Amino acid sequence: MKNKLGPFFKDRAVVLLSGGLDSATVLYIAKQQGHKVHCLVFDYGQRHRREILSARAIARKAGCPVTMLKINLPWKGSSLLDKTLNVPEHLSLKGVPSTYVPARNTIFLSFALSFAEAIDAGVIFIGANSIDYSGYPDCRPNYFKAFQQMANLATKKATTRRKIRICVPLLRMTKAQIIKAGLGLSVPYELTWSCYKGRINPCGCCDSCRIRAKGFKEVRELDPLLL
Amino acid sequence: MKNKLGPFFKDRAVVLLSGGLDSATVLYIAKQQGHKVHCLVFDYGQRHRREILSARAIARKAGCPVTMLKINLPWKGSSLLDKTLNVPEHLSLKGVPSTYVPARNTIFLSFALSFAEAIDAGVIFIGANSIDYSGYPDCRPNYFKAFQQMANLATKKATTRRKIRICVPLLRMTKAQIIKAGLGLSVPYELTWSCYKGRINPCGCCDSCRIRAKGFKEVRELDPLLL
Repeated sequence: MKNKLGPFFKDRAVVLLSGGLDSATVLYIAKQQGHKVHCLVFDYGQRHRREILSARAIARKAGCPVTMLKINLPWKGSSLLDKTLNVPEHLSLKGVPSTYVPARNTIFLSFALSFAEAIDAGVIFIGANSIDYSGYPDCRPNYFKAFQQMANLATKKATTRRKIRICVPLLRMTKAQIIKAGLGLSVPYELTWSCYKGRINPCGCCDSCRIRAKGFKEVRELDPLLL
Repeated sequence: MKNKLGPFFKDRAVVLLSGGLDSATVLYIAKQQGHKVHCLVFDYGQRHRREILSARAIARKAGCPVTMLKINLPWKGSSLLDKTLNVPEHLSLKGVPSTYVPARNTIFLSFALSFAEAIDAGVIFIGANSIDYSGYPDCRPNYFKAFQQMANLATKKATTRRKIRICVPLLRMTKAQIIKAGLGLSVPYELTWSCYKGRINPCGCCDSCRIRAKGFKEVRELDPLLL
């Protein structure tokens, strides 16, 4: 499974792709760094399939292979999974938002770790962000540091010198900084989907729509999704 | 979701149940400690369904609810999942055995963490063992310590004082010690299934059968599965 492309060879990378603005930017960052990217897309019972379709379209545009993974979480506890709960329409100022899915990033990263080991990838990219989503416990810097330490012990690779690195390039960036970086990398933001609702057009009211709109406003650019 | 049963109340517990001898023993240890146990059983594309049927039967006997979780791992890399690979018939003396599934315990524990948070359980039991399975990187004490540290930061509970404990009671026990403890707790070993093959009777040749047989021999008891 060893790749022998000489001194210019970069590690294979697994990118967790959700179809949103952040993970699309991360995919293009990974490509810019020279990685051979494999996208991992989860179908975990989201309220709508719109973001899965977006993820596929983004990967196709970037020319990267996609592995789809269907996960069934039979327990409730999040307004993103439970259609009887309302998705909040206001920015949460403190506390953990109702859109939080228990241990979601841990589940996603665990599958990515397994996938990375199976395809001999040396790095996993995840588009988490601790600034605009500070309400989620599994988006904080300390959490990723602890996951990396666990991953260093968890795999067959961990028993050799080659470990799998968890890379969170957007961790300390604001949405405006992410969008600015992404526009510089020609990320196809017109294909991304951020809205918690899966209608034809973004609702413009949910947390996710508001944060996105604020980001584009700050960099003084129009959101191509709305053009 | 708070349980108010007074001073005798013990935390709800999630037990990862595989249908094997170890996890069945752990289930009875958790019950003996007074926990209200919820079993989590994974269908992850094992070579045979025999151990899933065993898991269901053991949980029924113990009077505990079961949540089944189907996971699709579309990548290969383990002789337990890939039917084109042979399951080894000899005890591996060093290195990681071919039956190793990339990051399996990390994936299982991540789902257990999510489940525990959703049902407000304070502890997760896993029947891993570092003595007889020292070849698996994710069965070593350091790995579980690192997973606990990550879990302490991963959930909504982690932002409060109540954390979810990972309990690995068999970690440093030999198979003989596990069987001795289990017989004392009346674990229904006749319902458990250890063989990597899913025939009517255990093959008696695979790593797992041999370790089991050695354990029963050491405690000078007959394996009720073979009676």
